Amino acid sequence: MSEFVQAPEQDVVVSCRVRLARNYEDLPFSAKQTRECASEVIDRASTAIGQSQEGNAYQLLRMSELEEDMRRKLVEHYLISYDLLKFWQRSAALISSGETVSVMLNEEDHLRIQGLMPGLQIERAAELAFSADDVLGAKYAFAFDPQWGYLTSCPTNVGTGMRASAMLHLPALSTSGQMGAVLQAVSKLGLTVRGLYGEGSEALGHLYQLSNQVTLGRSEEDVIRSLVAATEQIVGHERAVREHTEKKDMLSLQDTLLRSWGVAQNARLMSAKELMRRYSDIRYAASMGYLHAPLRGLDKLMMDLQPGSLGVYSGKLIGEREGEILRAKLLGEKLRELVTD
Amino acid sequence: MSEFVQAPEQDVVVSCRVRLARNYEDLPFSAKQTRECASEVIDRASTAIGQSQEGNAYQLLRMSELEEDMRRKLVEHYLISYDLLKFWQRSAALISSGETVSVMLNEEDHLRIQGLMPGLQIERAAELAFSADDVLGAKYAFAFDPQWGYLTSCPTNVGTGMRASAMLHLPALSTSGQMGAVLQAVSKLGLTVRGLYGEGSEALGHLYQLSNQVTLGRSEEDVIRSLVAATEQIVGHERAVREHTEKKDMLSLQDTLLRSWGVAQNARLMSAKELMRRYSDIRYAASMGYLHAPLRGLDKLMMDLQPGSLGVYSGKLIGEREGEILRAKLLGEKLRELVTD
Repeated sequence: MSEFVQAPEQDVVVSCRVRLARNYEDLPFSAKQTRECASEVIDRASTAIGQSQEGNAYQLLRMSELEEDMRRKLVEHYLISYDLLKFWQRSAALISSGETVSVMLNEEDHLRIQGLMPGLQIERAAELAFSADDVLGAKYAFAFDPQWGYLTSCPTNVGTGMRASAMLHLPALSTSGQMGAVLQAVSKLGLTVRGLYGEGSEALGHLYQLSNQVTLGRSEEDVIRSLVAATEQIVGHERAVREHTEKKDMLSLQDTLLRSWGVAQNARLMSAKELMRRYSDIRYAASMGYLHAPLRGLDKLMMDLQPGSLGVYSGKLIGEREGEILRAKLLGEKLRELVTD
Repeated sequence: MSEFVQAPEQDVVVSCRVRLARNYEDLPFSAKQTRECASEVIDRASTAIGQSQEGNAYQLLRMSELEEDMRRKLVEHYLISYDLLKFWQRSAALISSGETVSVMLNEEDHLRIQGLMPGLQIERAAELAFSADDVLGAKYAFAFDPQWGYLTSCPTNVGTGMRASAMLHLPALSTSGQMGAVLQAVSKLGLTVRGLYGEGSEALGHLYQLSNQVTLGRSEEDVIRSLVAATEQIVGHERAVREHTEKKDMLSLQDTLLRSWGVAQNARLMSAKELMRRYSDIRYAASMGYLHAPLRGLDKLMMDLQPGSLGVYSGKLIGEREGEILRAKLLGEKLRELVTD
């Protein structure tokens, strides 16, 4: 996916994901899983994908064979979950070359099939996931109950086994203190919002993940439809606050955001935490047209400068200080490449 | 004076001044001065300068004829003192085209003759002042007592009537908390240090003025010699701390200073106070070779962006907010012109 290609609603929606939890009906579930059974899961999945049309485009990554930084990089690029690493001795992932499909193997469930798209393209992400689902479930059937639907390790996933989500960049809503209202509104729709990359009350980079809570009693189409509708509402709300902020005092807004652009180009030390702040300001500036930079390029740059990804780039384990130096250097270089005056 | 010409020790010494207090012996001193007598002072001085070799190069500015912003600009460029404006109805200034000599008329004394040079050139500044002194005192004698020397309105100036000063940029000494020690050391030499442009404990822009206190009992040469010696000591001290700071952690130093450079280029609003902070960081960075910018150009830019000077530039009275906008705009433009990568 080129960093210069525009995606729908990408001024607010960074990316979206649809993830399906699946388990082979004839193999014991995760809690009782043996090493042999874990191997069997990896064999079945990689064989099925390998024999499919897109087989060549996939790469099998066994977590036990990866360096620590490479594992972290996969998490930082949303290709695997942090939980997959808990089971690193037996877990693996199948990842498509375009990084739009990834299949986690031996996480909480045998398979976690994930479709990933930039911007607001949840239906397309779902298509990708269901298409991989068809391939993976063709030879060996998945545990499925006519009444309950797909059976999963954790009861909260039983039913569709589907978790759909949108990653949202909400600088205007969050700096104007309106995230509380958003949270309340979406919870009534069976959706949840949580900050990404952050622990405290404010999400790092003003990035939030909106996802469905319910997997039981509603069809996949229904869940996706309501997630898309809620996302569109939040997008509209975020845009309205951005416009209002601009209208109220454009120069102050530009001043704040473009200072970050100046700092990001000239800093010699950049912590991972500060990176998120600068990224958010620059992305916001670019989406308002104050800077000419491709948003996808900024998103990719932000992921590439996370600690694990930086370690992979440098080809060796690096300390925090080395990381800050390298991050600042690459950030300046890449921004100058990305931004056109 | 071109902004690209280097001056001695200009990495630390911004400029130096020698100022002579003089009064015509046959006219009443300031406290008893009438309007007619004030006119007479202006006539005598402007006629004397006008008939001298460099006469054409001087401009007579009557304070009563200047807009408020123009008066402030003259103060901001160190061409007149703030005190001259207290007597604006009767005061004036003769200013040389290169702005290296200015003669204040009807300040506290009839004449305050000032020589001004970039960098550490106190002797040269003194030559300029004494040369103008000769011209101005040729026809009408100055009040002079064989025992006491030149007589002045305020007894603290009696004797040589001379105040010599150096304006120093001391970012390393002040941020490392060593200004207290410097102050103590110079006070033993009959010198004094005070912050410029600032009220609090830390001088705005880390600019300090070092000057002599004593005008009585020491010759002009002696005072200048000791001021030069003290300045050279402080210059050495400041450079040592800069080198030490760089040696200890060059990247942190570069990071701090170059962030200001990034901010200064990209800000859309810039207060007069923040300007001084950014100026100091950028000047420090340039003097360390982290940026390639002529120091004189930076100094001139700093003065040109002071509130009064900005008002003169814009050709009309501007409010604080307008000033912040214009300052940010000009700062960005000029810095891009001045700095070569």
